[in-house]
Amino acid sequence: MSKKPPLSGDGEAPKTISVATIRSLDLDPPRTRREHDLLGEADVPVDALWGIHTKRAVENFPITGVPVGHFPELVRSLALVKQAAARANKRLGFLPPDKADAIDKACTAIAVEGLHHREFVVDAVQGGAGTSTNMNANEVIANLALGTMGYPPGDYAHLHPNDDVNMAQSTNDAYPTALRLAVILATAPLARALDDLAYAFKTKAVDFADIVKMGRTQLQDAVPMTLGQEFDAFHATIKEDVARLGEVAALFREVNLGATAIGTGINADPRYASLAVEELARLSGQPMVLATNLIEATSDMGAFVFFSGLLKRIAVKISKICNDLRLLSSGPRTGFAEIRLPAVQAGSSIMPGKINPVIPEVVNQVAFLVIGHDLTVTLCAEGGQLQLNAFEPTIGYCLLNSMRMLTAAMDTLTHRCVLGIEADRERCQSLVRGSIGLITALGPALGYEASSRIAKRALDENRSVAELVLEEGLLTEAQLDSLLELEAMTRPSRLRIVPDKRGKPTSM
Amino acid sequence: MSKKPPLSGDGEAPKTISVATIRSLDLDPPRTRREHDLLGEADVPVDALWGIHTKRAVENFPITGVPVGHFPELVRSLALVKQAAARANKRLGFLPPDKADAIDKACTAIAVEGLHHREFVVDAVQGGAGTSTNMNANEVIANLALGTMGYPPGDYAHLHPNDDVNMAQSTNDAYPTALRLAVILATAPLARALDDLAYAFKTKAVDFADIVKMGRTQLQDAVPMTLGQEFDAFHATIKEDVARLGEVAALFREVNLGATAIGTGINADPRYASLAVEELARLSGQPMVLATNLIEATSDMGAFVFFSGLLKRIAVKISKICNDLRLLSSGPRTGFAEIRLPAVQAGSSIMPGKINPVIPEVVNQVAFLVIGHDLTVTLCAEGGQLQLNAFEPTIGYCLLNSMRMLTAAMDTLTHRCVLGIEADRERCQSLVRGSIGLITALGPALGYEASSRIAKRALDENRSVAELVLEEGLLTEAQLDSLLELEAMTRPSRLRIVPDKRGKPTSM
Amino acid sequence: MSKKPPLSGDGEAPKTISVATIRSLDLDPPRTRREHDLLGEADVPVDALWGIHTKRAVENFPITGVPVGHFPELVRSLALVKQAAARANKRLGFLPPDKADAIDKACTAIAVEGLHHREFVVDAVQGGAGTSTNMNANEVIANLALGTMGYPPGDYAHLHPNDDVNMAQSTNDAYPTALRLAVILATAPLARALDDLAYAFKTKAVDFADIVKMGRTQLQDAVPMTLGQEFDAFHATIKEDVARLGEVAALFREVNLGATAIGTGINADPRYASLAVEELARLSGQPMVLATNLIEATSDMGAFVFFSGLLKRIAVKISKICNDLRLLSSGPRTGFAEIRLPAVQAGSSIMPGKINPVIPEVVNQVAFLVIGHDLTVTLCAEGGQLQLNAFEPTIGYCLLNSMRMLTAAMDTLTHRCVLGIEADRERCQSLVRGSIGLITALGPALGYEASSRIAKRALDENRSVAELVLEEGLLTEAQLDSLLELEAMTRPSRLRIVPDKRGKPTSM
Amino acid sequence: MSKKPPLSGDGEAPKTISVATIRSLDLDPPRTRREHDLLGEADVPVDALWGIHTKRAVENFPITGVPVGHFPELVRSLALVKQAAARANKRLGFLPPDKADAIDKACTAIAVEGLHHREFVVDAVQGGAGTSTNMNANEVIANLALGTMGYPPGDYAHLHPNDDVNMAQSTNDAYPTALRLAVILATAPLARALDDLAYAFKTKAVDFADIVKMGRTQLQDAVPMTLGQEFDAFHATIKEDVARLGEVAALFREVNLGATAIGTGINADPRYASLAVEELARLSGQPMVLATNLIEATSDMGAFVFFSGLLKRIAVKISKICNDLRLLSSGPRTGFAEIRLPAVQAGSSIMPGKINPVIPEVVNQVAFLVIGHDLTVTLCAEGGQLQLNAFEPTIGYCLLNSMRMLTAAMDTLTHRCVLGIEADRERCQSLVRGSIGLITALGPALGYEASSRIAKRALDENRSVAELVLEEGLLTEAQLDSLLELEAMTRPSRLRIVPDKRGKPTSM
Repeated sequence: MSKKPPLSGDGEAPKTISVATIRSLDLDPPRTRREHDLLGEADVPVDALWGIHTKRAVENFPITGVPVGHFPELVRSLALVKQAAARANKRLGFLPPDKADAIDKACTAIAVEGLHHREFVVDAVQGGAGTSTNMNANEVIANLALGTMGYPPGDYAHLHPNDDVNMAQSTNDAYPTALRLAVILATAPLARALDDLAYAFKTKAVDFADIVKMGRTQLQDAVPMTLGQEFDAFHATIKEDVARLGEVAALFREVNLGATAIGTGINADPRYASLAVEELARLSGQPMVLATNLIEATSDMGAFVFFSGLLKRIAVKISKICNDLRLLSSGPRTGFAEIRLPAVQAGSSIMPGKINPVIPEVVNQVAFLVIGHDLTVTLCAEGGQLQLNAFEPTIGYCLLNSMRMLTAAMDTLTHRCVLGIEADRERCQSLVRGSIGLITALGPALGYEASSRIAKRALDENRSVAELVLEEGLLTEAQLDSLLELEAMTRPSRLRIVPDKRGKPTSM
Repeated sequence: MSKKPPLSGDGEAPKTISVATIRSLDLDPPRTRREHDLLGEADVPVDALWGIHTKRAVENFPITGVPVGHFPELVRSLALVKQAAARANKRLGFLPPDKADAIDKACTAIAVEGLHHREFVVDAVQGGAGTSTNMNANEVIANLALGTMGYPPGDYAHLHPNDDVNMAQSTNDAYPTALRLAVILATAPLARALDDLAYAFKTKAVDFADIVKMGRTQLQDAVPMTLGQEFDAFHATIKEDVARLGEVAALFREVNLGATAIGTGINADPRYASLAVEELARLSGQPMVLATNLIEATSDMGAFVFFSGLLKRIAVKISKICNDLRLLSSGPRTGFAEIRLPAVQAGSSIMPGKINPVIPEVVNQVAFLVIGHDLTVTLCAEGGQLQLNAFEPTIGYCLLNSMRMLTAAMDTLTHRCVLGIEADRERCQSLVRGSIGLITALGPALGYEASSRIAKRALDENRSVAELVLEEGLLTEAQLDSLLELEAMTRPSRLRIVPDKRGKPTSM
Repeated sequence: MSKKPPLSGDGEAPKTISVATIRSLDLDPPRTRREHDLLGEADVPVDALWGIHTKRAVENFPITGVPVGHFPELVRSLALVKQAAARANKRLGFLPPDKADAIDKACTAIAVEGLHHREFVVDAVQGGAGTSTNMNANEVIANLALGTMGYPPGDYAHLHPNDDVNMAQSTNDAYPTALRLAVILATAPLARALDDLAYAFKTKAVDFADIVKMGRTQLQDAVPMTLGQEFDAFHATIKEDVARLGEVAALFREVNLGATAIGTGINADPRYASLAVEELARLSGQPMVLATNLIEATSDMGAFVFFSGLLKRIAVKISKICNDLRLLSSGPRTGFAEIRLPAVQAGSSIMPGKINPVIPEVVNQVAFLVIGHDLTVTLCAEGGQLQLNAFEPTIGYCLLNSMRMLTAAMDTLTHRCVLGIEADRERCQSLVRGSIGLITALGPALGYEASSRIAKRALDENRSVAELVLEEGLLTEAQLDSLLELEAMTRPSRLRIVPDKRGKPTSM
Repeated sequence: MSKKPPLSGDGEAPKTISVATIRSLDLDPPRTRREHDLLGEADVPVDALWGIHTKRAVENFPITGVPVGHFPELVRSLALVKQAAARANKRLGFLPPDKADAIDKACTAIAVEGLHHREFVVDAVQGGAGTSTNMNANEVIANLALGTMGYPPGDYAHLHPNDDVNMAQSTNDAYPTALRLAVILATAPLARALDDLAYAFKTKAVDFADIVKMGRTQLQDAVPMTLGQEFDAFHATIKEDVARLGEVAALFREVNLGATAIGTGINADPRYASLAVEELARLSGQPMVLATNLIEATSDMGAFVFFSGLLKRIAVKISKICNDLRLLSSGPRTGFAEIRLPAVQAGSSIMPGKINPVIPEVVNQVAFLVIGHDLTVTLCAEGGQLQLNAFEPTIGYCLLNSMRMLTAAMDTLTHRCVLGIEADRERCQSLVRGSIGLITALGPALGYEASSRIAKRALDENRSVAELVLEEGLLTEAQLDSLLELEAMTRPSRLRIVPDKRGKPTSM
């Protein structure tokens, strides 16, 4: 989904695109096996890797239709957590090697080979603090492992989803750990996409380095700058976010694996937590560490809220940039028209030839969705009670969705918009030449009050600043030329002493 | 999706459930046809009903993966708008009868028979103010119509997506009109689900009418009430929202069809707007009317913001109710434990026998998602500029998603939770009997200050209020019995004159 | 605060302006009287109208520094509720006439004469669901009443804040009732301010009725309209909100006075509720009615959430309008520059002569504050538990603050900006003349595809549409003149049959 | 405002408290002086330190009534920025020593001595990107400096607000720099208040270290823990935020002083920026540095959005903690009742003796206000355009308000609630003893399925887990005693081999 789409028309258009659709999950097909739980018995499809706990959850939560399996980072992270736990339990001698190895193999299939994600069928938005996702994982892994051991799905006497796959774990430590790892994994493509976008802006900044244009504050003509400076600021602001993203994502390395039910570590050997986290770090290649206060770590959503706030910051910046691109390209005849965005589709069903800034517009909307998700994350976090936050699944849903959308949006912005932007050098130049804002450069020479008067006359009489300054004899033509050199105005200006009307040298 | 799921275990479990999955949209398959637009030419799959405009949009907006076709109310509404326009254009003599009839038939297939929704492949979140959705509809309808006229897809010389299907329309009137109609259509199942929930609460209110329990304010023991009163309040508050929903949805009946590009009606015959809206009302069975100020109506998102605010209000109420259900059922041994929610799945992977309030929890999360979407709607609306709001597609995405999730959540709450709630009559009774809050009923007799003193003693000495009142000789046993009759406390209390320590009759 | 400020410089500038400052509330001055409560004893200033409950609350909640007394509508409403209760209690014979009359008089001083608001010193943001505000009111009214009866403050044996002033009331019915009435009262000035603003836009719409300009969608040149139409849309959209404001505020007329602690009416005579609401309606001049389900009404914040959503809608609309005003006046030389906002202050400390759109900017910010407050209201409402919402004081704080700020912002927008807006007729005309968007009017004649080609050529070759159409011989000069008549483009266009290149008459 | 209030009743109650009130700013008093600006002339009070620019702003923005002077950190920071600029300009030889010294002295009076804050009368919420605040500062400092030079206010020929005080500055660098410094300054008391709160929780954690109680997840009985562990988690989570606060506030050290109007440094000597920032660092004692990209730094609000996100995170955590305190203290007879909050005021006007958790409640509301402010900050940041964000004043207003309220709320929570919390050891113990959740400790011995069955029987038959295990002969009494030792359950449990029904040793 986050592949770089080339600019349309360049012959390298993507051959296929992924579109969500609906599949019917047949919960009671002709051939079934019978499983049981606390509530009684139920049939599941004979070859389903998921079992009765998953089935009940699917029935209970028909909310978004989006299954956990749609978030590959989360599915992979769940498998890595189960694998790490199995290895730790094997090292401690609690889990027999044959079981441990079978679980290990099953987890590799899911985490490394990317298989069986379609078996993670519970709705991503669910009650129960992630128990259903955890049980879905336990069941799928147990049944995969049973297969490698030569048993049919559901034959849990030989390897049990809870007693073996979930050994020494609770949803309340396994699930948050997996979710944290999933966010770390999803950070990489987002950072890559931001980097690409920043680079695209830098490329344009270089291209536009010598195009002088009018800077604007509060939508009013201010003072000159270069278009390159404007695009370089976009580059700089995004690079900052790449840095922040790395810093804040690092907070997720602290996990509560081994905390079990509420952080007291009940039912876990005292050596288990460190071993499990060590294994997880090895398997994931991420420097995961054990949280120092496991009770706090089990219910605390602070890192998620903080990270979501950073995604919001990225969204806000990107939205502001897109607003700017739309302003600068407004026109083609009655707007600012300093730049032209590449045409990627016809803009109107009624207005022929109209080209709209559709790529920045879709990015704005992604930003708004991310900001909305940040609020949902906030509400979920605030709603936690006592030793657990029951709303973690929706926190995960929002964060992973936001990251995926942001990544896709950055890519489409980079490749279908920024890289193709062209500048209208002549228009930039002509606008700046006619601007009253040039008076600012005369301020140190003329003083604030005289300058204000000249500016007002220029506006009222529709004349140029230079003309009026000469008419009033405030400066000589040579002085004026020197002060009004455009290029110089785009940098800190050296001291230029000028005899002014106030009878003394002035400065700045 | 909004079918009523029966309580698990009753033998009527749904046979299938819908789960989102991914299909690969092959944009450049072996057999293609060539189309062209403002930007040049491109190939589309030979038998695709969509064309080049749709293809470009699919490539431009790989954002959510959720296509417009996932919102059946929107697809149907788009078809109804195109059908209404075609009929109006036919009546005015602009569209030849053969074309009009072919378009008409195509729209019926989509709107009434529910066919071809899979051809609406553009991402629901898109730039361009809905142009891509509108063009997707124009192309699908044109190609369907061409089929009925005996021509192959893409043979637009005989019937053109823009000139004919989009005749007298702009995206800027056709799309908002369709979106408004879509919201109206999606309101019906939501109202039905709310009604069902309210009815479920009423049923329980009747069942629990004579169970006296302690009312609580600020989580502190207050005064007695019946459990029936508590559930009846849930009923009442939801019924209010059903009423509001109808009122606010009615605002969407005012549409800008005929406004064309910016509300001035350019390129539309002066008679067209009224005719088209009249046809739309007839086709949809909804009393649609033409907005009085078409320029305002074209850019104004006020009705969407207002409606979203109402969805937020529903979310807030439902969330509060679910919080209450979770509080009242907290336990089973160390909480309030006044009610028991039905067990719908095992609650923990580590804590055997634990049953969690998973259904209220998932409803809370839906509420939080709806509140987040309301913020996104707000941001989109605020971002409108001049004669149009470019962010309408995301407004539609959020509203339709929120309504769908709310409907599903209400249904699961009704059928998997509320209808199965049981009360613990004995516990309710024993809690109220031991409560210090009974002192309130003595307030009018003893005065605020003496009552406060008794309450404080009861708390400090861990004794009952009645005991202390008798010990202090403030009231006789008969007076006390009369004042402390529990049932009476749950209704406005008649005047009961009691000789009190302040030496005069008192009241209330 | 909501007085209409005249445009600066017209000789009628306001002589004074209100600015918040800090006063030191001396809680333990030299001369005190001793009061007692549940917790013990404490000294209060000897002549303070407030007492020990208020003192404790002031100490407990040093949060915003903004006392309840800063919201005159709330203080007046509290007094009206107490007065209504006293009259009902007198009619029922529970409150002796001398006490009732003294309370009545005290309430009149506060509610009608606007006196003693400075005695409402508890922080507007407080715990306890409004108990402190209610007790502050009870104490002030009791002490005022004691004064009229010839007793000193604090001599509660003769008239008691709880037993008499608060008779048959709980904070939980008295406070929400007062808050609802306060919102109703604060709606009037807001509606007036919105009406004034709408009228100002209408005035300008009339002034600008014949100025043809380019309409813009997605910041790109669209089709012609008049500046009058643009301003009339502002008028229309605000008038709609005035209507909605009246409708939604009407929901606050339903109150729970008589519900007492949790809605069961404990300690209130069954006749009391109706009598008290009847008295309140008479005293306030508002058609207040008793809620049908008092338990629901006591904890439900739905009306507040809904009303807040409407304030948010107003904020969103106003913000969009201000964004438009800033865009249309961007310049003076390098922006759209179609209108000029009146200069109300110098715009820059460094750029002489710069004039900024400071009034629209401040209105934008008020809109953002209102939207933030709406979120706070939402959070407060969602946080309600069981029989009460403890966070009502902050709901009131946010709503009353939002209304006050919106009223002030509308007034400053009307009088310091909108009424002084001037149009640049020549620029509007010249921009529209040079626009490529005129091609839309040729669409029905030339067809979508030929028109698109012409538009593209015009843009690429920097030529006019008319020129190219003539060059290509697509239309005669006469046909072109007729189709391109600007005035006609701003209205629905009658059928104009034109021989086009597709060889058949076309339309629209 | 952030003084630590002692627990009520301890004899050290604060003597005075600050309450906002209104003062009338007389804009046209009898004795005036005449000033002029771009728009013309106006009279200001003869001895006002502010001048015509301030007066116009006061008239233009009668929005909140809260003047800039209410934020002492901002006023002090403004003075420090002006002082730093004056020193830099003096060092560069642009500002004559007598003027520079007079400005220096004036700034010291404001920044160090805390004088003249009442002269900062412009509304904190204002249009113009802070120009009015900057001009208010320029005017006050100029007039103070004129005084030290022996001239009357308004005699700007000798020292000019713009040419001298504002030399080499624009609002667009001076104001954001001051705002950033103000946030840094306001961080110290907030961090101190958070530290105090964390320490208070730690104190309680030590006190409650040996009180075993039931942990709860999803409001359902989970497994045992100590009350000390619960409070220690509160301590840990707040300490984390103190750390984050320091890290994120450090981002504000990067300032754009010297960027002037849009970041190009127009009108500033190239050496000026570094010198000015160096002076600012020295004067403020904060390690301020110059931003690397001044154009980016001038319009970017990223640090504010990020910091606001952190304040939101603090708010979310604190709100969750207060929710927990309210739950744990629910009762006194019908709730959890594991802890008792200190009584700080009577809880009800109708229910005698009722004590409510008013302090946690007010803290919840502060959290909700902060979250609302975060949204406003987000909206302001997103609304920035091109080279400036015009909405920075409201960003500052929200952040400084949020920090002030949070500081006050933390202090009242620490001193009026947390430090006085008492535990009900007996109740905690008796609840845990009767809990079914103890079954979890038997899970490793009995297996998940047998344990689930026992748990279900215990609930259905209202019996204890131990009783049933013995009845079923699953474990011996000795084994049971060892497994059910409460203390051990609150820590990671060592391996305990138990012969179980599955016929093999088990573990965990």
